[in-house]
Amino acid sequence: MKLTILGCHSATPRVNSHPTSQYLEINNRHFLIDCGEGTQRQMRKYKVGFSKINHIFISHLHGDHFFGLIGLIATYGILNRERDLHIFGPKGIKKVTLLQLKISETYFKYNLIFHELSSKESELIFEDDKVSVKTIPLNHRVYTNGYLFTEKPKPRKLHIDNIKQYPEIETCDYHNIKAGKDFILSTGEIIENSELTINPEPPKSYAFCSDTIFKPDIIDIIKNVDLLYHEATFLKDNEHLCKKTKHSTAEQAGIIANKADVKTLIIGHYSSRYSNLEDFKKEAETVFKNVQLAEAGITFEG
Amino acid sequence: MKLTILGCHSATPRVNSHPTSQYLEINNRHFLIDCGEGTQRQMRKYKVGFSKINHIFISHLHGDHFFGLIGLIATYGILNRERDLHIFGPKGIKKVTLLQLKISETYFKYNLIFHELSSKESELIFEDDKVSVKTIPLNHRVYTNGYLFTEKPKPRKLHIDNIKQYPEIETCDYHNIKAGKDFILSTGEIIENSELTINPEPPKSYAFCSDTIFKPDIIDIIKNVDLLYHEATFLKDNEHLCKKTKHSTAEQAGIIANKADVKTLIIGHYSSRYSNLEDFKKEAETVFKNVQLAEAGITFEG
Repeated sequence: MKLTILGCHSATPRVNSHPTSQYLEINNRHFLIDCGEGTQRQMRKYKVGFSKINHIFISHLHGDHFFGLIGLIATYGILNRERDLHIFGPKGIKKVTLLQLKISETYFKYNLIFHELSSKESELIFEDDKVSVKTIPLNHRVYTNGYLFTEKPKPRKLHIDNIKQYPEIETCDYHNIKAGKDFILSTGEIIENSELTINPEPPKSYAFCSDTIFKPDIIDIIKNVDLLYHEATFLKDNEHLCKKTKHSTAEQAGIIANKADVKTLIIGHYSSRYSNLEDFKKEAETVFKNVQLAEAGITFEG
Repeated sequence: MKLTILGCHSATPRVNSHPTSQYLEINNRHFLIDCGEGTQRQMRKYKVGFSKINHIFISHLHGDHFFGLIGLIATYGILNRERDLHIFGPKGIKKVTLLQLKISETYFKYNLIFHELSSKESELIFEDDKVSVKTIPLNHRVYTNGYLFTEKPKPRKLHIDNIKQYPEIETCDYHNIKAGKDFILSTGEIIENSELTINPEPPKSYAFCSDTIFKPDIIDIIKNVDLLYHEATFLKDNEHLCKKTKHSTAEQAGIIANKADVKTLIIGHYSSRYSNLEDFKKEAETVFKNVQLAEAGITFEG
């Protein structure tokens, strides 16, 4: 699992600080998360393969999280995309996107499929044989979801040395063995699966939480994830602004990470009023030990 | 008069090629022309003062000319703008902008005033004591206007040495003299204005023409301008694409400049299929001698 930060600052694009967007590679699936203005430029800068992405997840409809979506959709048309493109996001995203396409007379071959969200409960919104995606209801000034990406359990790994002890087992049997089945020899003897396989790597998971006020009831949903991205717009010195703007401090992000017992916390969505990002890391580290700062171009492995 | 190129490539933003946007300073007025995705970042990069701009002119509603507008409008809100912001552009621009603002729950203190255009004739759309702006009807796949920016005639300049010959002329008389009036001495003798003043600099003018198929009937409108920006999406080798896409070649831009007898031709809106922009300059120079290549960050003085 690899997470590449394309932008991680709040509010407005600046020369060296880009609004939210992330590229997630998980179990051979490729997702774009949020799409602030300039995301397609950042994708090119950091060599994200445009054609790999079939699913885009938008947390909420503030400009710094979706004003780059229309440009990316139009660019896919120019690139002669043919494969379906799925957009997940709050109700309203379809109407505004279709109006922009109509007014700019932008037409293309591929199907643009919207999955509009309005539930206030966590729900399963995507699932295939590799990955599932659930919403994480957040509390911001507008309707907002985080997203929990979880790998499906992987097949068991073959214990080749042990398998070789049984010449009767052929390559075509491997599929059933990896699926956890025992093997029955022609003598009737049962070889238990635990002798023929070893445990696979546990499924990886990534939780994306931006933007939100401190919301401890997400902890149950994101419990034990490998990577947690949690917004940290302010430091404690501006905690009073969190209530008004419905954002979190770095310390609050740390508290969520600590209580959810995640492996790594990544923080971002920094307010432009702060020039030293290390202060965010230090503050979060007072309550959680493994904190990383989001920065455009950095890839985190989970 | 100064024209700063913020972006001058066609179709989609790339790391080092930005879609159309220009910043024009003319007779102490400050205008933004077109606003492709990422324009606000380019404005910051090239130190364009956000607060100076009160008027934005959009040529047409293809994404590479206006997808950055909504982000800029929202940023003005974040910057606590209070002054009116005027947007000139094709009919439809108001509806799509207002829907984006509504859906992103973006509110601000300043007034956003739309001037929607639909005429196919050249019309005067802005005028104050310093500058006038007229549309230049173009022929593209969607309704498109270029814009002609012209300084108002400047007051005559005082010929101080000659004025000093007449002690009767006081500072408070200068206003009338600059306006072209003769001066009558107490003896009744008339001093002709031509003795007291010299000609001011002729009014400067800038014509912005993007995007369009070769359209010689714009020549009458842009005759003798100091600076002409004319799109040159293709070279002659791809002239067949001009009909289909309604764009121009560098040679065609040169022909327009030549026939309109302009001082300087700036070309841009290059298709990404060309890597050597000097080829555009060479081609236009076969028919017009003073050709400049648009490039982000370059300022042309007129």
